[in-house]
Amino acid sequence: MEIMPTSSAAYLKQQRPLFLQELIEFLRIPSISTLPEHRPDMQHAAEWTAESLKAAGLEKVHLIPTSGNPLVYGEWMHAPGSPTILSYGHYDVQPADPLAAWISPPFEPEVRDEKIYARGATDNKGQIFTHIKAAECLLRTQGQLPVNLRFLIEGEEEVGSTAIIQYLAEHAGELRSDAVLVSDSSMFAPGVPTMDIGVRGLIYMEIELEGSENDLHSGLFGGAAPNPFEALVRLLSKLKDEQGHILIPGIYDAVRPPDDDELASWRRLPFNENEWREQNVKALALTGEPEFSVLERIWTRPTLEIHGLPGGFTGPGAKTVIPARASAKLSMRLVPDQSPARIARQVETYMRALAPPQYKFTFRLLSTAEPVVFPPSDRFNRAGAAAIDKIFGRLPAFVRCGGSIPIVPLFASHLNAPVVMIGLGLPDDGLHGPNEKFSLMNFYRGIEVIIEFLRTAAARA
Amino acid sequence: MEIMPTSSAAYLKQQRPLFLQELIEFLRIPSISTLPEHRPDMQHAAEWTAESLKAAGLEKVHLIPTSGNPLVYGEWMHAPGSPTILSYGHYDVQPADPLAAWISPPFEPEVRDEKIYARGATDNKGQIFTHIKAAECLLRTQGQLPVNLRFLIEGEEEVGSTAIIQYLAEHAGELRSDAVLVSDSSMFAPGVPTMDIGVRGLIYMEIELEGSENDLHSGLFGGAAPNPFEALVRLLSKLKDEQGHILIPGIYDAVRPPDDDELASWRRLPFNENEWREQNVKALALTGEPEFSVLERIWTRPTLEIHGLPGGFTGPGAKTVIPARASAKLSMRLVPDQSPARIARQVETYMRALAPPQYKFTFRLLSTAEPVVFPPSDRFNRAGAAAIDKIFGRLPAFVRCGGSIPIVPLFASHLNAPVVMIGLGLPDDGLHGPNEKFSLMNFYRGIEVIIEFLRTAAARA
Repeated sequence: MEIMPTSSAAYLKQQRPLFLQELIEFLRIPSISTLPEHRPDMQHAAEWTAESLKAAGLEKVHLIPTSGNPLVYGEWMHAPGSPTILSYGHYDVQPADPLAAWISPPFEPEVRDEKIYARGATDNKGQIFTHIKAAECLLRTQGQLPVNLRFLIEGEEEVGSTAIIQYLAEHAGELRSDAVLVSDSSMFAPGVPTMDIGVRGLIYMEIELEGSENDLHSGLFGGAAPNPFEALVRLLSKLKDEQGHILIPGIYDAVRPPDDDELASWRRLPFNENEWREQNVKALALTGEPEFSVLERIWTRPTLEIHGLPGGFTGPGAKTVIPARASAKLSMRLVPDQSPARIARQVETYMRALAPPQYKFTFRLLSTAEPVVFPPSDRFNRAGAAAIDKIFGRLPAFVRCGGSIPIVPLFASHLNAPVVMIGLGLPDDGLHGPNEKFSLMNFYRGIEVIIEFLRTAAARA
Repeated sequence: MEIMPTSSAAYLKQQRPLFLQELIEFLRIPSISTLPEHRPDMQHAAEWTAESLKAAGLEKVHLIPTSGNPLVYGEWMHAPGSPTILSYGHYDVQPADPLAAWISPPFEPEVRDEKIYARGATDNKGQIFTHIKAAECLLRTQGQLPVNLRFLIEGEEEVGSTAIIQYLAEHAGELRSDAVLVSDSSMFAPGVPTMDIGVRGLIYMEIELEGSENDLHSGLFGGAAPNPFEALVRLLSKLKDEQGHILIPGIYDAVRPPDDDELASWRRLPFNENEWREQNVKALALTGEPEFSVLERIWTRPTLEIHGLPGGFTGPGAKTVIPARASAKLSMRLVPDQSPARIARQVETYMRALAPPQYKFTFRLLSTAEPVVFPPSDRFNRAGAAAIDKIFGRLPAFVRCGGSIPIVPLFASHLNAPVVMIGLGLPDDGLHGPNEKFSLMNFYRGIEVIIEFLRTAAARA
């Protein structure tokens, strides 16, 4: 009979091969949420996640049915006086195409060179599994956790998180927590443990200009009929100046600059703008506001992008249509303390004023996400930093995410709690691409970091 | 036994019911050149056309095989000392969708209210049939024609005239003619017999700007990565001013203004800019160079139009891509004496200079057509006018066509001959749309006009 270790660290060390076997099992489930034919796999992955929570010792484990894929819930709430942490993650994955680019098949996980290769390895099965296994290590050796812990794991992160967003709005009271823990991001660079303290917000818009009721022939009408593309490009050319400054009046009013500590810490990051341009952007030159560093531009500045200009004729060959209507798909990334609703109104007002009166102007706001930033000095961020310092031997970089993760500001606002983002992936892990991988070292160390975080979060209460 | 009339007019009067029956037969053939499944119908229509030329008394009637649909040729060359006229038309038609919008099916011709409804009724089967029947009326009653006459009828007009363009270039010597006769246009208004004396030219271009090698995520790169749409709309916004003047240096240098007679005649046309805007353009306002009348703008001025802006994301919903590449499909209509090749070089030079250096700029010239204008004082245009005056009781309006009919300038240059364009359609005949029709009065009068034209063209030799 095997002797059960009495320390979580010894237990983890003993269980490593088993944990890896279990992760491989998890990764075998092709839970691709974007593809309807994988619906049974979504249910399977949800049930598998629930079983692993039960096996870890969590209580009240159950699936929460939704209009889409089920949520998985579990909790351990026997630490009165200690804070409550909500662990969030997702069991759904991206599609795996192009399949031919994979060295080993995406749903037949393979360990090569101390990394596990599979779709979902780092996004997010491998990372959420560190949370589950951290709880298991503590519960199996200590019989208890240092904090109260809830798990809320969704199956629609790659398709917009519809179900969890609705559930969170309706059940915030039952989910009451002091902090949310998310491991769904990456280290800034190998050897640079990283915490994300903010995400940009988003407004996604569609505008349309209509010049005539029907498409017209440019031979018969060209020279006298309105061409909405002509008005559209003129309008769009007035949204930013050539240096990348957005020209909409008041658009920067609410922008809160990062504090000096943050800026100073970014200057210490291993980041070379020229290397980033060559290797990541693969462009001849970078663009954007020259008075800000690249990291400031992508993390702390609002931006405006044109994504596509639907309308008219876009096929091969020559069709000489003057289209009745031309559209633009646009978005802005927003930063604290910009309000998506207010910014959307400013954009609409500005563009409406630019639209020539002979065109019908339509503005549609398709979606929004709040920007959010959590101070590094927050107790839970400090707990995360201390845990990382202990396990990795160095304090984390506090960075921001230029993207918009709608669930993060929603957790913050519905639960009135900070979101602690400890990223265990690496920049080259191939999220959403072929040959996605997760470093086994980061997997095991991640479990240690989460154990340490739960302890430190309790100690600082 | 029926008595054969000895005048072409009496013959026409006697044969009207039969000519209509034959036209109905011609219109029953669904010779849609854009749809490959109609290939057998193309052959059938070509053979039917050849048979009708033979029946009319033309000689050397045969199909000329091409890489696409056959050409139909026939001639009568026994009028030495008289000019040679080449009659051009096409036996192919546009697709008929939307089928549901047709009152009677497109290939089951129906006469309602003295009009024949069918796809191809006016474009071009009904109109070219007036030429064939004019020859028949003369040959069956006089045993001869007043001029030498060739027919060259193609089956690819609706798909770019590829075969006839190549044939014309290679066989111009065999086709030697003094004038080309085309009835493939419309009267300016009901009761206003019309001759087109010019067509605009065309250059069709595609430009592309590339900012990076791959599509990028606007969250991770937005603010620092080049967005080719941003550069594209800025570039395109500099092609014209807000009044519609093209800003490319030298672009207007070769423009030959219409002569005073032409301008004076257009002022007499039943044309009201406001009515045209409301009923034809269906727009809140017209655009374009304010110092020119609408008819000048669409007939005698070069124009530049954006047809579509391919690239990025144009589907429903929100995708936050910064595309690697963005394109524009553009064309210019040209007027005499602009050279398509020279104008294309000017456009390319101007745009290349505007493209920011951090983007790769590509320019592709997809197609060109020469502009052309024939003086109303040309003897064959005068012959057409005299014929119209005699049959319709009023002289024709000499107008221009804002569109580009590539075969017209090619006839002019390869045969060194003017193209006489006598349009027998009406503006509301529904070319390319549902319920296409051809007025029976214009069909019968058209035959008379063509007979008279052939006589007058000979008399003036």
